[in-house]
Amino acid sequence: MNDFSRTLSSAVWEPLIPKDAVTIFSGGTEGVLSPHVTFILRTRAATTGLKGCVGRTREFLPHEVGTKVQAEAVAATVSELVNRLDVAASQVHLVLIKCPLLTSAKMAAARASGKVPVTSDTYESMAASRYVSAIGIANALGEIDDAAMITALSSGSSSEGSAWSAKASCSSGAELDDCHVFVLAVNESNLQPRDANSPLRATSSYMANAIDASAVVKLLEQVKTDGGEVVQVFAKAEADPGGLVRGYRHTMNTDSDLHSTRHARAAVGGLIAGLTGDCAVYVSGGAEGQGPAGGGSLCVVYRIIGR
Amino acid sequence: MNDFSRTLSSAVWEPLIPKDAVTIFSGGTEGVLSPHVTFILRTRAATTGLKGCVGRTREFLPHEVGTKVQAEAVAATVSELVNRLDVAASQVHLVLIKCPLLTSAKMAAARASGKVPVTSDTYESMAASRYVSAIGIANALGEIDDAAMITALSSGSSSEGSAWSAKASCSSGAELDDCHVFVLAVNESNLQPRDANSPLRATSSYMANAIDASAVVKLLEQVKTDGGEVVQVFAKAEADPGGLVRGYRHTMNTDSDLHSTRHARAAVGGLIAGLTGDCAVYVSGGAEGQGPAGGGSLCVVYRIIGR
Amino acid sequence: MNDFSRTLSSAVWEPLIPKDAVTIFSGGTEGVLSPHVTFILRTRAATTGLKGCVGRTREFLPHEVGTKVQAEAVAATVSELVNRLDVAASQVHLVLIKCPLLTSAKMAAARASGKVPVTSDTYESMAASRYVSAIGIANALGEIDDAAMITALSSGSSSEGSAWSAKASCSSGAELDDCHVFVLAVNESNLQPRDANSPLRATSSYMANAIDASAVVKLLEQVKTDGGEVVQVFAKAEADPGGLVRGYRHTMNTDSDLHSTRHARAAVGGLIAGLTGDCAVYVSGGAEGQGPAGGGSLCVVYRIIGR
Amino acid sequence: MNDFSRTLSSAVWEPLIPKDAVTIFSGGTEGVLSPHVTFILRTRAATTGLKGCVGRTREFLPHEVGTKVQAEAVAATVSELVNRLDVAASQVHLVLIKCPLLTSAKMAAARASGKVPVTSDTYESMAASRYVSAIGIANALGEIDDAAMITALSSGSSSEGSAWSAKASCSSGAELDDCHVFVLAVNESNLQPRDANSPLRATSSYMANAIDASAVVKLLEQVKTDGGEVVQVFAKAEADPGGLVRGYRHTMNTDSDLHSTRHARAAVGGLIAGLTGDCAVYVSGGAEGQGPAGGGSLCVVYRIIGR
Repeated sequence: MNDFSRTLSSAVWEPLIPKDAVTIFSGGTEGVLSPHVTFILRTRAATTGLKGCVGRTREFLPHEVGTKVQAEAVAATVSELVNRLDVAASQVHLVLIKCPLLTSAKMAAARASGKVPVTSDTYESMAASRYVSAIGIANALGEIDDAAMITALSSGSSSEGSAWSAKASCSSGAELDDCHVFVLAVNESNLQPRDANSPLRATSSYMANAIDASAVVKLLEQVKTDGGEVVQVFAKAEADPGGLVRGYRHTMNTDSDLHSTRHARAAVGGLIAGLTGDCAVYVSGGAEGQGPAGGGSLCVVYRIIGR
Repeated sequence: MNDFSRTLSSAVWEPLIPKDAVTIFSGGTEGVLSPHVTFILRTRAATTGLKGCVGRTREFLPHEVGTKVQAEAVAATVSELVNRLDVAASQVHLVLIKCPLLTSAKMAAARASGKVPVTSDTYESMAASRYVSAIGIANALGEIDDAAMITALSSGSSSEGSAWSAKASCSSGAELDDCHVFVLAVNESNLQPRDANSPLRATSSYMANAIDASAVVKLLEQVKTDGGEVVQVFAKAEADPGGLVRGYRHTMNTDSDLHSTRHARAAVGGLIAGLTGDCAVYVSGGAEGQGPAGGGSLCVVYRIIGR
Repeated sequence: MNDFSRTLSSAVWEPLIPKDAVTIFSGGTEGVLSPHVTFILRTRAATTGLKGCVGRTREFLPHEVGTKVQAEAVAATVSELVNRLDVAASQVHLVLIKCPLLTSAKMAAARASGKVPVTSDTYESMAASRYVSAIGIANALGEIDDAAMITALSSGSSSEGSAWSAKASCSSGAELDDCHVFVLAVNESNLQPRDANSPLRATSSYMANAIDASAVVKLLEQVKTDGGEVVQVFAKAEADPGGLVRGYRHTMNTDSDLHSTRHARAAVGGLIAGLTGDCAVYVSGGAEGQGPAGGGSLCVVYRIIGR
Repeated sequence: MNDFSRTLSSAVWEPLIPKDAVTIFSGGTEGVLSPHVTFILRTRAATTGLKGCVGRTREFLPHEVGTKVQAEAVAATVSELVNRLDVAASQVHLVLIKCPLLTSAKMAAARASGKVPVTSDTYESMAASRYVSAIGIANALGEIDDAAMITALSSGSSSEGSAWSAKASCSSGAELDDCHVFVLAVNESNLQPRDANSPLRATSSYMANAIDASAVVKLLEQVKTDGGEVVQVFAKAEADPGGLVRGYRHTMNTDSDLHSTRHARAAVGGLIAGLTGDCAVYVSGGAEGQGPAGGGSLCVVYRIIGR
């Protein structure tokens, strides 16, 4: 809450980019992670490779933030964007969402209108908003059906449930009332192996836990098989809420000095940077519903190298 | 300095073990690292595999701590232990040292006797003591010659120099005036491939930087080739003093909240735990002279599995 | 949660004192506060001055911790101790309580027996246990009547309510299932102005907020008027939950690095140490129900100096 | 070093104020201290009360920062400003200085030109620059003579020496190469007791240590005697380098989590806010040469209230 690097970045950054650009700030470059910016740019040339598009949900009232209403709106927007890209849900590899949170003022506004906000704690509202966004993504992409979505949303926001998306990467911010949604996909059926105009590709999976090197290695091997080189990795990370990483006790949740998200980013960042040889990878904390409990969603964007 | 977990551990632990046992506490299980104890036990049976022995230097006067005098005494003790083990220096895979530091009282005592302590900062004295211990190890094992040792020691304690040992793992403590030295080696010439009485082995290398996965992978492949399974990994880690990890800017040295050793352990611990599938590995911060600048020494102890 | 100084203190301290002694550890000597121990010792001589006695409630089941059941048991025990001391409630100046908290294991036990624990967060259970203990004290000393107690307990544990005790000083600990209660009083009606055998006195009040110097000054003036010198000050402190100290915005509740209790102890400790000239004063954080919101209970023990 | 609130403030603030305005940012509102801005504004009306003026030294080469050269330049500029104000040195109550520090780039530049920077540590260069600035002030105001200045500067930068100024308040910044100097004085000989056009006054002293309430109380009593009310307090604070506050052991210098400046600001801020009833006071850490060791300079600006 008293990290002003985000506010500073916004003040300096926002005037320099187009108004309709979607910006996700992910704070914290613990360990070997290196401060960096990843631009995703539109090209005028028709391409058959990597495709992306951007949309927004409607604005949410304070009492809707972090609830089923938000999840359903996210699901609808993601579905619409997938349609617009003309790809199958299975060809989507990343859905980045920036979603609202509940400030003290918003909670008061909810109560003043006779409604009950999902939580009375700002920090928890960030988790709740990320979680329902992820559940909405999972539903839109067919990772969970409607019944599973209802169950997931009725049991309270939680990173411990069985409903999650391997494609979701969600961040909460105080500066918006709607959800900003970015969908990244590859229309694989149309691809030519070495298309010079469309060299970009993506693939995705999830880390089952914070030391799941094999999930990363498998994606890197696919990149290699395709004759490609890694452009960027997008990973979510969290401290396992059960207190164990593959059976080993960890101390990330009982460190009073250092928030568990900092521990998780440092460890998963160390692993991914080691496996890719690249410290400017995107490793973001707060993985509620974005991959299984203690793990996280994982996407690799790569470039086919010409012969 | 206000971490009382070490003092608590000592108070509870020391009464339970033999007086002549060497104990190294390495504090900090950042990220996925799991609190654990590694016992190295003597067996009465004659073995041809892993061999270890323990010794001590003489006690140092306050003005000798962190200086050439300490380095030379360490070199002498390590040489003697290597001889006692009857192995070649190249067959040594780990030298663990617990060495003294300078408390305020010790610095005052040095000055009262007309001597100048190596530093007037307790924290720096820990680094200096680790560094000269590592240089002494490097010299005893033939990793650097006498001339290189003199050069290394005349330029001040530093983790940026070119003199270092790939086998050294040193920790400073306030509770001793001498150096406690443990040497681990394998007499490879005598080994039978599947000796049921001597299944333990060790191998060593160094990480060139904090994301040097290939150094770890190579040792793990050797373990596999030998038909073994990992018992324990001993690694040293540090934030690169030059501010870059393989060309990528890191922020470990400019974080006012969180000491760089915590960042380094979290990142390297995440990488090694991911590659081994084991969170109870020994990753220790403060790697001055213990591996190259920004990297660290690396030792894997493993067990040959019977057919 | 990862502050091992408390555990270390217990391990070293407990074997040295009588089994039935009540020990309160208050961690954190921020700012000018000095680490110290305050002994309250029994004397065999009959005295007419300061009187104290110790008692315990029954042990609480996990689902009772932090609830009305605990408050009522505390009220009963405090009433009994006040009777035993043969003083009026208005002559009580301090009630120190060490009360239980809910560990993860205790919460699971509550649920396993079909009960609902007061909270599913260990940290919050500490606040809830302190709060209901303070409400029990307030009721026993007549600071609030039964109706006010019921209202206070029905609105959830909170430091923002209007029900509180100016004599309460409560700390939660994991090592007990009952409440340990210490009551300090002065039977003023029997006192002789300069009783050489009973020179100890106490007086109490409360700080209305964290900069309420006048509350402290008034007690110190009373000590002076009585011809005394301060022996010890017992104060509780907290960051005002409303975000303002006497109309000034504070940042104690929005500091992600540093818990608000550390801020509050540092500031109130600085004030009391400055006013008394003594840095070894007892300033404890976590003041739910122990003084008004943002303030804290205050007790001064002093010694009449012979002429 | 990773506190971006200062950079953010600069980015937002600087475009809004005149180019020649002097801005001092003092970061850290620990405890009850409240974030605030103090404006010191010029008035066109001739006044006989509070007088201030601003000046600059020449720019310093990297190897001059933190040395005798800087101290002498500060002394010359302060003397000149005192003359311009047409007051006696004893009528000066505050000299605020913003002074340069040594970045890594500046240290490298110094070495490239064959010079030796005063330190190779950025953090230490800030302390050195504050210290020599304070010594220059002390010399210009006659608090120490030339011989004492030479002695003070030859013994290395230090907050433990006997040479200091009760009027100095110095901060280091990376954004300047010269020293910006602001002098505040009162020409007391010309003052009328209740001059409606010149109601502002100032008085100054120093805190002998971090709990020196009497120093603050004396100035507040003078304000009261003069029929005034406090406008602002300017205080410097530091953790006593000897580890004791008036004989009591403190832990500010051995807290690995929390820098001693944060502890000192919290404690001294708590005391001054309590004594004045005002949380928006200026309490700045890093008091080398600005008041005695463990204490700090102290200035109160007040307004005479009309009858």
